[in-house]
Amino acid sequence: MLNNFKLTIEYDGSLYHGWQRQKNDRTIQGEIEKALQTMSGKEVVLIGSGRTDAGVHAMGQVANFSLETQLKTENFQRGLNSLLQEDIVIKACKQVDRRFHARYDVKSKTYKYRILNRPIPPAIGRQYAWFIPKQLDLEAIGRAIRYLIGFHDFKAFEGAGSPRSNTIRHVFNADLIEEEHGYLVFEIEADGFLRFMVRNIVGTLVDVGLLKITPHDFKKILHSKDRDQAGLTAPPHGLFLMAVKY
Amino acid sequence: MLNNFKLTIEYDGSLYHGWQRQKNDRTIQGEIEKALQTMSGKEVVLIGSGRTDAGVHAMGQVANFSLETQLKTENFQRGLNSLLQEDIVIKACKQVDRRFHARYDVKSKTYKYRILNRPIPPAIGRQYAWFIPKQLDLEAIGRAIRYLIGFHDFKAFEGAGSPRSNTIRHVFNADLIEEEHGYLVFEIEADGFLRFMVRNIVGTLVDVGLLKITPHDFKKILHSKDRDQAGLTAPPHGLFLMAVKY
Repeated sequence: MLNNFKLTIEYDGSLYHGWQRQKNDRTIQGEIEKALQTMSGKEVVLIGSGRTDAGVHAMGQVANFSLETQLKTENFQRGLNSLLQEDIVIKACKQVDRRFHARYDVKSKTYKYRILNRPIPPAIGRQYAWFIPKQLDLEAIGRAIRYLIGFHDFKAFEGAGSPRSNTIRHVFNADLIEEEHGYLVFEIEADGFLRFMVRNIVGTLVDVGLLKITPHDFKKILHSKDRDQAGLTAPPHGLFLMAVKY
Repeated sequence: MLNNFKLTIEYDGSLYHGWQRQKNDRTIQGEIEKALQTMSGKEVVLIGSGRTDAGVHAMGQVANFSLETQLKTENFQRGLNSLLQEDIVIKACKQVDRRFHARYDVKSKTYKYRILNRPIPPAIGRQYAWFIPKQLDLEAIGRAIRYLIGFHDFKAFEGAGSPRSNTIRHVFNADLIEEEHGYLVFEIEADGFLRFMVRNIVGTLVDVGLLKITPHDFKKILHSKDRDQAGLTAPPHGLFLMAVKY
């Protein structure tokens, strides 16, 4: 009988070409599928909650796979963690209902984007934050970020070359959190995200923080549905997929 | 006229064979001296506040060098940061009194040691903490760590093969701080440290946390002046030289 397993995965994306399996490059999905095949002797397809791009990290990516097996969840978790490189960790493995689908059943996803805003670049942790030496106006960013909350057509923040037919998403929460030592964290929860959406939003919010545009301009860009209006795409290494809810 | 410059340095020690210049291996001192030579055209000797071992990190290492130069402090800082790899950052450069000596004039140093204490290993930030899956008894560690404060002969926590004639040190502060997500931080400030002293103390405190020894045993080990009594040396990648006071 086929069993359905749900994995919760943490990874450091620094050395990977993103989530999705590729022929010639190391990817998160590819590495875990390889390990599953080693353990089970069968070809296993791992269904992720969605892709993450090259260099993006995850604290709580979720994926599932179906397999006819006698192996128990603890054995899968232990076995996978011993087969995988230490920059991919299976945090949890659960047996779930046969109908559970890691992508179709998503209720919400939460992303964090970390910025280090201080004059001097970091040596420690530079893999985990976008370094911005010019001081950002946090009050302006705080006003702009609120416009994201609710139902919007996020076409203006969609990556070029990857159009979706439906670009309306529901943003439940969007926050700017000031942490110690000059770290700023954007936290956004939505029912789904377009490709590059968080990074394009962050790039544009940074333009607000640098006073290149006003919070009102940010709102106009959001409503323009025009990618050319938005700012640069923030680099991948500040981005973390934190959690997926079902 | 010779000018004396004081550098404050942050580094990720992961890829270095420690602070001290070596013939064939990359070291922090070696890399900065090379960059200083490139900038000044002269051989420059960089005096650190003390060595850090291979794999140990620093948020606030201090060093000084004397040089006859027209270059200003801002130029040194900018020049060095553009010449150095991104895992070494000059956080500050100041011109100081000719008599300032980064090693002899130390009043205190503060080290932090980070442990991640949770069942599942980390993928993110694994370079910056010692992962311990078994739950530690923090109350026991908290009682043991207090015995460190004051004047003591720390011979029991000195690394083998590197004896000092004077092994008495004055510990001003020793704390255990619980952070979010299972992180524990030991913070120790003293007028000086023996080689491997922090890592040997942490290794022994972890034995207390694992209930292999009691807080009272920890006190006896400290007073024994016998290295064989103490626990394992904690791995280098959890250790950070945070600050040096003069």
